[in-house]
Amino acid sequence: MSIITLLTDFGLADYYVGVMKGVIKKINSDVSLIDISHDIPPQNIIAGRFCLINSLAYFPDQTIHLVVIDPGVGSNRRGIIIKYQKGYIIVPDNGLINGIFEEEEIIEIIEIKNCQYWLRSDPSFTFHGRDIFAPVAAYLAKGIPLDYFGEKIDRASLIKDQFFPYQLTDQGIIGYLQYIDHFGNLITNIPANLLKHKSWKIVINNQEIMNYNTYNDGEINQIISLIGSHNFLEIAVNQGNAQKILNLKIGDQIELFFT
Amino acid sequence: MSIITLLTDFGLADYYVGVMKGVIKKINSDVSLIDISHDIPPQNIIAGRFCLINSLAYFPDQTIHLVVIDPGVGSNRRGIIIKYQKGYIIVPDNGLINGIFEEEEIIEIIEIKNCQYWLRSDPSFTFHGRDIFAPVAAYLAKGIPLDYFGEKIDRASLIKDQFFPYQLTDQGIIGYLQYIDHFGNLITNIPANLLKHKSWKIVINNQEIMNYNTYNDGEINQIISLIGSHNFLEIAVNQGNAQKILNLKIGDQIELFFT
Amino acid sequence: MSIITLLTDFGLADYYVGVMKGVIKKINSDVSLIDISHDIPPQNIIAGRFCLINSLAYFPDQTIHLVVIDPGVGSNRRGIIIKYQKGYIIVPDNGLINGIFEEEEIIEIIEIKNCQYWLRSDPSFTFHGRDIFAPVAAYLAKGIPLDYFGEKIDRASLIKDQFFPYQLTDQGIIGYLQYIDHFGNLITNIPANLLKHKSWKIVINNQEIMNYNTYNDGEINQIISLIGSHNFLEIAVNQGNAQKILNLKIGDQIELFFT
Repeated sequence: MSIITLLTDFGLADYYVGVMKGVIKKINSDVSLIDISHDIPPQNIIAGRFCLINSLAYFPDQTIHLVVIDPGVGSNRRGIIIKYQKGYIIVPDNGLINGIFEEEEIIEIIEIKNCQYWLRSDPSFTFHGRDIFAPVAAYLAKGIPLDYFGEKIDRASLIKDQFFPYQLTDQGIIGYLQYIDHFGNLITNIPANLLKHKSWKIVINNQEIMNYNTYNDGEINQIISLIGSHNFLEIAVNQGNAQKILNLKIGDQIELFFT
Repeated sequence: MSIITLLTDFGLADYYVGVMKGVIKKINSDVSLIDISHDIPPQNIIAGRFCLINSLAYFPDQTIHLVVIDPGVGSNRRGIIIKYQKGYIIVPDNGLINGIFEEEEIIEIIEIKNCQYWLRSDPSFTFHGRDIFAPVAAYLAKGIPLDYFGEKIDRASLIKDQFFPYQLTDQGIIGYLQYIDHFGNLITNIPANLLKHKSWKIVINNQEIMNYNTYNDGEINQIISLIGSHNFLEIAVNQGNAQKILNLKIGDQIELFFT
Repeated sequence: MSIITLLTDFGLADYYVGVMKGVIKKINSDVSLIDISHDIPPQNIIAGRFCLINSLAYFPDQTIHLVVIDPGVGSNRRGIIIKYQKGYIIVPDNGLINGIFEEEEIIEIIEIKNCQYWLRSDPSFTFHGRDIFAPVAAYLAKGIPLDYFGEKIDRASLIKDQFFPYQLTDQGIIGYLQYIDHFGNLITNIPANLLKHKSWKIVINNQEIMNYNTYNDGEINQIISLIGSHNFLEIAVNQGNAQKILNLKIGDQIELFFT
């Protein structure tokens, strides 16, 4: 049984996600559906990318990831299928997948063009998740060959956007917050591998943040930094909510000093 | 594998939905469960109906839709099974399905009476979703014949409630907001087919709202009207939240003028 | 097909729950996943226990319940597997399961030690749900014998915490609020069986609360008490939200007088 994951900014309150699943099951009942998240902040490609990056490795090979965070729906932005070493990603071409893959990992990219595999040849202007992306995922899981969906395109032609700009300085690293999770943990874009075998400090609001291995090493309510399970530097509060205490938001700059 | 969809106002925070699924799987493990929504505003039959209307066509034939928005739970309101051309709806008889079906589409309506197919013969007063509706759905998916669940009743006996009152005027149409989605899009009850080949305008707070084909055709943050994927007229803001900007709510009147 | 349920405080906004499901499916594709809740208030063991208690009876025998509400993640708190008469619970040893089982119901308790059945032998400090508990659940569902996961431990060695302290007085019962559901219903820890064949009253803010059988028996917006489907005394408002009206919170004391 193939797996299709769903990652969107549609929320769960409306019927949108349920209907995408209905469309998939109607085409291909032999598929297992797993939600990654539907609560990506609306149209936030950076947050969607963060969730996708952190999910890919944990799913079975050949999983099809359906990612619909689509500020350009109804415009002439392209829909694409990326075949990479471990599976497939179906996504609008809007920069979300920038920087996720090494050059050699991508096997093929197809522009979705053939409306034979859409819900209808005249898709709605506002819900390509239902009318195009979900049926394409269902047919792909059914074994329809990749090149039936459209023409091969060049990786270089994909939309670029700003990508993970952290900056090495004489004293350390300047990064920014790329994600805030449910617990209020503040996840920077400073990768763990830059911090290996080093000691450092972060200063926020003139207050030095101590660095620990785990949330629990700090005192209750202490603000700490640590390498989280995402493999980025994060700022957290033991049994508390760092976002509420520090009142930071996605995009805010974080400066780290090597010591 | 049969499909049972779930549409409730139970929310996902409590264990209620999980337990309904446990009850179903305990009776019939060979069933695939798909959530349509569990975040219908509490006891809001209009919003539940809107989500059901917009979902039915996208599911496979013979899908069983379990719809539990049930302000009258514990009272003597009836539970019913509707067999229609493409599948089944299990729902309290409270007006939710009014206006969804053409006369000829409904094949049979059964009042749920036979407690042999309930979780127990003395259901709780407060959770018929678990004690009655979920087990009935599971047994129906298992092939128990419809008339085993209770007696056939007449369509005319179903509870009525106010149904989609839009009003044609000399100048246009007066409707109201029937749903507000996750993005803050304001969905009226004015159907797309009344607007075909016509031009029109809407005025809200003395401001004329421009009509476009897609969210993206407007400027960023511009308030626009369009025919959404629901096939009703909706009011939206390109990359923004119309509800927050206009501060309208379900039931608010919208007047459309033909131009 | 085995069933694994998931009960966490991870929320659904992040990718955490999706990734746990990916990990499970990668190890054992032949498993059906059911969410009980992911919106337990962060680190709230009492609320998690309440949801687990109310769910167990409704799932098929041999269901594996994966419960990750884990304030001590990264510390040296143990992970355990409880085999009881009807299935399995995989959970950090933090008191959550205290009081759920009668002495004779528990068959065996294993401390999770064998990293062969983990995602990796060096789990992250912050996400044991993904790195330890999810893979253990997947392997258990696959038929790996219980004692492969670690050594048998004594029930008496499990962490205790405060458990359901209600207090019988000369005049009635003093309890507290143990849960507040999505509808704002206030669920006390006063069990239904103490109230059988008795009459009683509750007084809140100098206002006597009437006792009914069902939400619907009260007037619209009337504050009532009733025995809810959880089998505890609860305080509710017909078609309204008792929590918003009374502004009570988990832990607040409720005094009941026999009359």
